[in-house]
Amino acid sequence: MKIGIDLGGTNIAAGLVNRHGELTEVVSEKTPETQGKIIEVMVHLAKKLMACAPIGLVGIGVPGVLSADAKTVIHCPNADMMNTPLAQIMEEALKTSVYLGNDANAAGLAESHYGALKDEPNAAMFTLGTGVGGYLVVSGKVVTGAHGCAAEFGHTYVGPRHYDCGCGLNGCLETFSSLRGLQASVLKALNEGVESKVLAQAVKENKLDGKLILDRAKEGDPAAVIAFETMIFGLSIAIRNLMHLTDPAVIAFGGGLARAGDFLFDALREAVVPEQLAYPDIATPKFVGAQLGNDAGIIGATLLDRLV
Amino acid sequence: MKIGIDLGGTNIAAGLVNRHGELTEVVSEKTPETQGKIIEVMVHLAKKLMACAPIGLVGIGVPGVLSADAKTVIHCPNADMMNTPLAQIMEEALKTSVYLGNDANAAGLAESHYGALKDEPNAAMFTLGTGVGGYLVVSGKVVTGAHGCAAEFGHTYVGPRHYDCGCGLNGCLETFSSLRGLQASVLKALNEGVESKVLAQAVKENKLDGKLILDRAKEGDPAAVIAFETMIFGLSIAIRNLMHLTDPAVIAFGGGLARAGDFLFDALREAVVPEQLAYPDIATPKFVGAQLGNDAGIIGATLLDRLV
Repeated sequence: MKIGIDLGGTNIAAGLVNRHGELTEVVSEKTPETQGKIIEVMVHLAKKLMACAPIGLVGIGVPGVLSADAKTVIHCPNADMMNTPLAQIMEEALKTSVYLGNDANAAGLAESHYGALKDEPNAAMFTLGTGVGGYLVVSGKVVTGAHGCAAEFGHTYVGPRHYDCGCGLNGCLETFSSLRGLQASVLKALNEGVESKVLAQAVKENKLDGKLILDRAKEGDPAAVIAFETMIFGLSIAIRNLMHLTDPAVIAFGGGLARAGDFLFDALREAVVPEQLAYPDIATPKFVGAQLGNDAGIIGATLLDRLV
Repeated sequence: MKIGIDLGGTNIAAGLVNRHGELTEVVSEKTPETQGKIIEVMVHLAKKLMACAPIGLVGIGVPGVLSADAKTVIHCPNADMMNTPLAQIMEEALKTSVYLGNDANAAGLAESHYGALKDEPNAAMFTLGTGVGGYLVVSGKVVTGAHGCAAEFGHTYVGPRHYDCGCGLNGCLETFSSLRGLQASVLKALNEGVESKVLAQAVKENKLDGKLILDRAKEGDPAAVIAFETMIFGLSIAIRNLMHLTDPAVIAFGGGLARAGDFLFDALREAVVPEQLAYPDIATPKFVGAQLGNDAGIIGATLLDRLV
């Protein structure tokens, strides 16, 4: 058995995964605020699972940037880490091999091995959640880059935007096509006088979530439609660039917003094909939903040794 | 010995290349207008070289898109080809193995083996000429994509532009950062009343070439400076996207406009580093000039068997 740990900004989840990629046991705790406490919780959860079965390796999906050798967390504000030698710290505490990887790469690896991207040597995945994560496979290899910061789809430029991204740049895909991007689009529309009683009420009650915005867009709510179209615009440009840079055969979409399913995919097919391709006589990628849902992060963490 | 053929829109050049990557003999002819005549010229040039030495293989760099198996030219308006089974046609005529590849990939392969990108497993090259070509290496593999249209940097989106690209899209890098892009920027500036006697005169005499525009930009000519800054803006966005997608360690620049050398590279360093990176504490790529000049196309064509 292997242990996969999904280190999230809100929860830390750890699970036992068998050699068929099946999750047989899950434990989780809220994510503490400081690096020391976070490491303590991860060690505690792993030890709990180690009491259940003999363990081959532990993998940790980290929501940040790792060193090129994947031993050190270079940059991870959501888990209070910076230049943290996390692999070594965890190996000393657990006395077993520990592999690190970007959380989006972990989720993507799970889809490549057991889910929507199975057996696809040229593929990509967008994770559409609070932010936008990315996963990129080229000729069967996961792209991690020279400095460990490849496949950060959320920070590619798709056009000028009315507010800057959390990363400091303007025009990031994440500001168009994430939950935060949808919320910012709705607020801007309401401020500009677009009428939407339901969404205005949700803002007041602090309940403006992704499901509500996408459900309202489906029903033609004017502010929600503007937000949805902005999301599709951003994704269509990002996909156009991906098509002209690595030319994937399949693109999967995961994360909470991808639960919109065909409402999202149909809009993307319309926006991307074929107007967004320099060579319209060439096949465009297939768009599919991710299949493993929230389990992908834990399952994929147990595959992170494949990246080394 | 191997034969490399560089099929250009203006000239067809063929050369003998030895196993050290040295070009020992070159022959060339003007590119005819029709597919039939173009193939005749390529066969004629190759046979001339075959009379000089025993030949292991023939490689052809094609300015267009190839099928995923690299046997068929799917799309190549500059050489009057569409769905042309060029590898088979040439193999039957020459009775030897023929390999095809995109011309930008041929030039990039030459730089990866003998030039500016030697021994770099994560690298990219922009070819800045009449248009913008691209070459992308990830984990030591040249990225050709699922449909053979990867690394088309020239058609990635970098922002809205006052005219559409030849490909039909708006916002292509090529419309900002190629010779055509520079010319369009100068013409727009002159039309809007920006003063530049030298460039206005060059337009009249049909002598508005890349060297003149970049030389004038260096000297502070207002219309040339606008064109140069537009070129740098486009490249800086394209590089930002490349950094967040494949994260190369080194980016080389070839083609006529790259002869501007440090004037170009210094401006790019200033535009890209570190404001254009979501993680400013992470190393940015090195920018270097391509080293093999016009020979890269012929030399690299003899390496196209490595892509299969």
